[in-house]
Amino acid sequence: MDTTILQNIVVRYAEAFEKADIGMIEEMFAPDATLEDPVGTPPKVGIEEIKAFYKSAFDMGVKLELNGKPRCSGNSVAFSFDVVMTGMKISPIDVFELNSAGKVQSMRAYWGPDNLE
Amino acid sequence: MDTTILQNIVVRYAEAFEKADIGMIEEMFAPDATLEDPVGTPPKVGIEEIKAFYKSAFDMGVKLELNGKPRCSGNSVAFSFDVVMTGMKISPIDVFELNSAGKVQSMRAYWGPDNLE
Repeated sequence: MDTTILQNIVVRYAEAFEKADIGMIEEMFAPDATLEDPVGTPPKVGIEEIKAFYKSAFDMGVKLELNGKPRCSGNSVAFSFDVVMTGMKISPIDVFELNSAGKVQSMRAYWGPDNLE
Repeated sequence: MDTTILQNIVVRYAEAFEKADIGMIEEMFAPDATLEDPVGTPPKVGIEEIKAFYKSAFDMGVKLELNGKPRCSGNSVAFSFDVVMTGMKISPIDVFELNSAGKVQSMRAYWGPDNLE
């Protein structure tokens, strides 16, 4: 897959948080996408559950700060970032797997108690 | 899964490179593990193919420098690091998924041309 598609989706993802724009999330994810955040918890399945998940984050005023370049590999991209909200910072690594239409089919967020500040 | 198991395997992984110790790799991976490096290429399957892969890296004098804390999540761990060898640096993100015996069942390395220096 063209690296620019993968890079752009990471940029747009941070922008969706910046603007608290749930429409950008809907545009970005496949209708039957899955989301596992953190990995090891029951996944959200389908765009409605996924939109509800991000709406909660947006309502809390969460913003993202990317750390370093995304790692684009096949049709996947892994990236490191900080989740910044009032009184707390989480430093996850996310992995997006895209489908052939360039939509996020699977999102997995890796983080645990050691990655909270 | 206990976070210390996941943290320790990342430390031991860097140590295996430091010592160029293929025995540590054999100890760390499940006999039927898979390795995809970079993601999107055909996986190595089984401990013999995996040992051959690391032997090549060790023979080239590759060392690892971890960047930041591992992200431990469920039975998986994602971590950012630099692969350092003569005249080249690669900055991947790896994801290890462990089995119930604490062995690496799946290794996936995310990196592309943008992550080379």
